[in-house]
Amino acid sequence: MFELLKTEKSARRGKFVTNRGIVQTPAFMNVATAAAIKGALSAQDLKQAGCQVMLCNTYHLHVRPGDTVVKDCGGLHTFTAWDGPILTDSGGFQVFSLAQLRHIREEGVTFASHIDGKRIFMGPEESMQIQSNLGSTIAMAFDECVENPAQYGYAKESCERTTRWLIRCKAEMARLNAAPGTVNPEQLLFGINQGCTYADLRRDHMKRIAELELDGYAIGGLAVGEPTQVMYDIIEQVTPLMPTGKIRYLMGVGTPANILNAVERGVDLFDCVMPSRNARHGHLFTSHGIVNINNQKYERDMSPIDDACGCPVCRQYGKAYLRHLLKSGEMLSQRLLVMHNLWFYNHFMEEIRTALDQNRFADFKREKEKKLSTRI
Amino acid sequence: MFELLKTEKSARRGKFVTNRGIVQTPAFMNVATAAAIKGALSAQDLKQAGCQVMLCNTYHLHVRPGDTVVKDCGGLHTFTAWDGPILTDSGGFQVFSLAQLRHIREEGVTFASHIDGKRIFMGPEESMQIQSNLGSTIAMAFDECVENPAQYGYAKESCERTTRWLIRCKAEMARLNAAPGTVNPEQLLFGINQGCTYADLRRDHMKRIAELELDGYAIGGLAVGEPTQVMYDIIEQVTPLMPTGKIRYLMGVGTPANILNAVERGVDLFDCVMPSRNARHGHLFTSHGIVNINNQKYERDMSPIDDACGCPVCRQYGKAYLRHLLKSGEMLSQRLLVMHNLWFYNHFMEEIRTALDQNRFADFKREKEKKLSTRI
Repeated sequence: MFELLKTEKSARRGKFVTNRGIVQTPAFMNVATAAAIKGALSAQDLKQAGCQVMLCNTYHLHVRPGDTVVKDCGGLHTFTAWDGPILTDSGGFQVFSLAQLRHIREEGVTFASHIDGKRIFMGPEESMQIQSNLGSTIAMAFDECVENPAQYGYAKESCERTTRWLIRCKAEMARLNAAPGTVNPEQLLFGINQGCTYADLRRDHMKRIAELELDGYAIGGLAVGEPTQVMYDIIEQVTPLMPTGKIRYLMGVGTPANILNAVERGVDLFDCVMPSRNARHGHLFTSHGIVNINNQKYERDMSPIDDACGCPVCRQYGKAYLRHLLKSGEMLSQRLLVMHNLWFYNHFMEEIRTALDQNRFADFKREKEKKLSTRI
Repeated sequence: MFELLKTEKSARRGKFVTNRGIVQTPAFMNVATAAAIKGALSAQDLKQAGCQVMLCNTYHLHVRPGDTVVKDCGGLHTFTAWDGPILTDSGGFQVFSLAQLRHIREEGVTFASHIDGKRIFMGPEESMQIQSNLGSTIAMAFDECVENPAQYGYAKESCERTTRWLIRCKAEMARLNAAPGTVNPEQLLFGINQGCTYADLRRDHMKRIAELELDGYAIGGLAVGEPTQVMYDIIEQVTPLMPTGKIRYLMGVGTPANILNAVERGVDLFDCVMPSRNARHGHLFTSHGIVNINNQKYERDMSPIDDACGCPVCRQYGKAYLRHLLKSGEMLSQRLLVMHNLWFYNHFMEEIRTALDQNRFADFKREKEKKLSTRI
């Protein structure tokens, strides 16, 4: 259940209540693709980094270790020892981006596993069954992620199919939640808005899926190569049509500046691999801008990554040590750098919430948007 | 300063006092080659795993990031945020095993860096200077590690040169410890017994270096391919000639059974990459024997690696999750498995100390030796 606490123009401060705890929004979810955060971070580390929601990938866990294995182990919460909310994506994005030789029919998609080439069929029912076995707190509807750019005609057809799939997802989840032995009988379902970069398709699709009274609504298929301003424009077209009383999730986004702009336009929830992926290459977010720890100038610099940061890495290690670890290919570099970036993102979201609480989000956005994107 | 607290036949229970704290012996040192434990473990993780001494490699740190960089960063303790004792090896072993195109003269060794092929010269003085820059608690003398098997004539000559090098090491360390700006002016020096598998060379060399009144004595050049019984025999030949009032360190050893046999013969200190290296491949030490976490039978087994283990991994995760992480190539598997094995080793040493305190080491050895080597 989503409770809207406060607004500042279109920006929203809220809380999302789940059977695994309350998520204060706007919030950023940390990505644990195969039930593990890249960079050797555990569930306990996520807690320490201020993470509220862990995101796992249906496709990856279906192919390895298998969702029935996870179910037999008690579901994702028991498996990973993470006790907070878990969101699982539907597998759709990975089926359309990672898997090979895919074939789309009304029933669903046949594709070859990227691990062993094994042929797999996944449709709305299968996606719901897998996510039910995983026992996540929130399941995402199975949708088609159309490549960008897309032809109008195909985008429209795909959108209509995604709507039909959503209806099937909802029915299948109701069945699964009521079935005996279900890991999480209170599993929630979010629908996903599609329509590529066509504003009319986006709006029509959003209006249509809003009628289905789901637990939350996502905007999918953005940040896939279109210009940033196009993404902002689409968000601006869609959010006014999203139910006010439901949480709004912008999938796979993004930079701090993207997040500020999406919050301004009424988005509540985010996820992105950027903080962990960038960290692994030594690109670090700080309150002063972006630091590249590979830089020679840090060779003997034992000051923290960010003097204003309270994360365990900034409190204990100097840049010279972190740079040495990264240059030496030591795994510890990945852990410490990812820990810093995740902490940064989660605390950045906390700052956004505080700014909204204090009715100064517009000022906060103005102050931060450019600064956080500057390379220092 | 070493204090012998108790003996049980030749086995010794002691404490080694350093300016970075007391080491309870017998003890196992955890290897942080390039100032980082493999498997993304930090200094804080080492503390949690019960580690008393961290071991770093002179050769690796000299070639990257450079010992003067570490000195400018305040020495290894500041660099790594580890506040306990640090032992640095002399670089000798790596020069003779990793480096290419080496050329040995009385002055020292010229070799090509394994990283960029750069020609480097290292002799006793250079090794001491590097270790002084690193600021370790204990420096090891620069010695020649002769390949096994070795000709008697070469082994004898090498031994004599290693003695001459040791005298030069002692003089250079005295000079460095008294020099202004030295990171650790109380740096300790351990001499290293060599002599390959020739008992008479080993004994003669040990007698000779015992006269030099060093802070501790090591047995080097073992566990390099000779049969285990030969190693035990050499230890038995050498330990009676080692000064009773000085700590005794068996370098690069070994399995739990090796450690039990060496403690029985009067050794106090150990180091080995085995617990971390084996962990990375899923080979785990437990109180019931050796577990291979890759085994299919653990696919849905959510029991801990070792039900008798109190480590953070056994308290939180099941084997099925750890196996999944390893199979998926997730870095988190490395961290969790290494953490378990290091915890096991450090707590195994604690059990040995308790057995010695209670005068039941012989029984403890009998009970554990075979069990801990059994694959389960």
